[in-house]
Amino acid sequence: METTTTTFFDLVRADLEKVEARMRQGPGGHHPQLNDAIEHLLSSGGKRLRPILVLLTCGMLGADCDESITLAAAVEMLHTATLVHDDLIDGSLLRRGYPTLNAKLSLGATVLTGDYIFARAAYLASVIGSKALMRIFSRTLMTIVNGEISQLFGTQDDDPRQEYFDRIYAKTASLFEVSCEGAALLSGCDNEVVTTMKSFGYNVGIAFQIVDDILDFVSDQERVGKPVANDLRQGLITLPTLCYLESNLEDGSLREKLLHRELDDETIECLIEDIRTSGATDQALEQANQFISTAKKLLMDMPSNPEREGLYELADYVVQRTI
Amino acid sequence: METTTTTFFDLVRADLEKVEARMRQGPGGHHPQLNDAIEHLLSSGGKRLRPILVLLTCGMLGADCDESITLAAAVEMLHTATLVHDDLIDGSLLRRGYPTLNAKLSLGATVLTGDYIFARAAYLASVIGSKALMRIFSRTLMTIVNGEISQLFGTQDDDPRQEYFDRIYAKTASLFEVSCEGAALLSGCDNEVVTTMKSFGYNVGIAFQIVDDILDFVSDQERVGKPVANDLRQGLITLPTLCYLESNLEDGSLREKLLHRELDDETIECLIEDIRTSGATDQALEQANQFISTAKKLLMDMPSNPEREGLYELADYVVQRTI
Repeated sequence: METTTTTFFDLVRADLEKVEARMRQGPGGHHPQLNDAIEHLLSSGGKRLRPILVLLTCGMLGADCDESITLAAAVEMLHTATLVHDDLIDGSLLRRGYPTLNAKLSLGATVLTGDYIFARAAYLASVIGSKALMRIFSRTLMTIVNGEISQLFGTQDDDPRQEYFDRIYAKTASLFEVSCEGAALLSGCDNEVVTTMKSFGYNVGIAFQIVDDILDFVSDQERVGKPVANDLRQGLITLPTLCYLESNLEDGSLREKLLHRELDDETIECLIEDIRTSGATDQALEQANQFISTAKKLLMDMPSNPEREGLYELADYVVQRTI
Repeated sequence: METTTTTFFDLVRADLEKVEARMRQGPGGHHPQLNDAIEHLLSSGGKRLRPILVLLTCGMLGADCDESITLAAAVEMLHTATLVHDDLIDGSLLRRGYPTLNAKLSLGATVLTGDYIFARAAYLASVIGSKALMRIFSRTLMTIVNGEISQLFGTQDDDPRQEYFDRIYAKTASLFEVSCEGAALLSGCDNEVVTTMKSFGYNVGIAFQIVDDILDFVSDQERVGKPVANDLRQGLITLPTLCYLESNLEDGSLREKLLHRELDDETIECLIEDIRTSGATDQALEQANQFISTAKKLLMDMPSNPEREGLYELADYVVQRTI
């Protein structure tokens, strides 16, 4: 995994190693190819923000340590499984600089490995033995997949901003949400705390995805290993583009053509440059900051301890990161 | 679904309609494409033997009726999801005479619909709220997928008979097993009954798959919509072939070539004819009958009621069916 120098990471470093081990620890007797594929996926990096959210929330609220580790592993496995199928569907050959599974294996092996990781995620969640947790966990998988289906087939929604927030909720925030909600459930605290932490996860997750979408426009191409504004080139409209369009309402035909994917390559290049040099990414960052501000306010009534400080830091990190 | 005239079907007819409704009843707010795909899959037939096993076992042991229906729906949804990904991987365009999902939709839509149905199956199982059930349910999904991965990559096992029984356990018997085990768990009966019913499901499931493999050799080609001995043509060795090889041990080179998939088309055609006209399918049926006989003995200590009689009938049906 990528190392960070932030303090919140130090707080969970030891437990995170146990999470890594638990993700690799299958029920035994399964095909070596599956273990190889899982090892490849887990050693190919990732910030592990979702398990860190689980561990910090569990730590702050006093959940059982072993159950925290299992939940953190379950959440990251669910995330990993969705990436396997996503990369296959998108035909992506690299993720975080490493070959994707579909770049190494056949269609069948990739589909099945994804399925197996889904199953292992569900198994890990079931081992904890919380009925409520199992329910929100499987509901989240439905939400994520429904979001991908909606992206594939398009929605009837004619409000692009609503469509964007629905999409990033399904894609990212739903799993951040369930990480914090699940951790609060494990801690046995009352409903109000569970709801507050669910909302914390939601807000951090939305901000995280907005920042990802900003970085897609402003990152150094070589560093991220894909062309600048890759989303827009693929026809995907994210918040920086929406902010740009909203600030340039007079150009209605551009907006219409963009929404209907009718722009030629040259116009797309000009538009990308315009978005990068306009204040659109700053406007998008301002909105991400608002979600983080909301998230941090939600922590105010939580128990004051190092893990709560860690969650504050994690929230700041989400909008300050450059990768 | 295909209608049968057997009495065990009459016993559960009303509940089975509720199962059908529950499988279609999503949590709402999801993409219409998903509902269309699920409707297509569910209206494309199937014997519904797994949900019938759940309903009869629950009825015999006195489980809550509503929970029985939910479990039956969860089990059939899990089965459906595995078929969606199987057909995609095999490139099958027809199942039970209807177009498969991959024949109608893109790769992405097919993978995601399968994922969504997995998630809905897990959600249905989680709604019941039994920790033990959730655990065996997700374990079964791992077993099924591991079996498919093993079939794809081959195993190190040099005992073809062991390999065959491992494969049909993963492919079929594991879900029959969990249908009966899960139903017994819901009924709150003691561990011995749960274990006995688990074993009943196992034995019926193994027999069911053996009969499927026999029908692959003896069925009317037009009726089943695929060539006779399709499995063998695809390089898959099933029990009739194993029985034939065991009766013709002197022909060691045929055996080696077959196991290493080194036979030309003409030799395969001769072999298929030899298997069909030898006693190999009868020998395989005799073995299926032994599993059914074991299954029926396991019912002897169960409560004597119409549902137990239904399970006896279902067991007989499994080896007597011709489709």
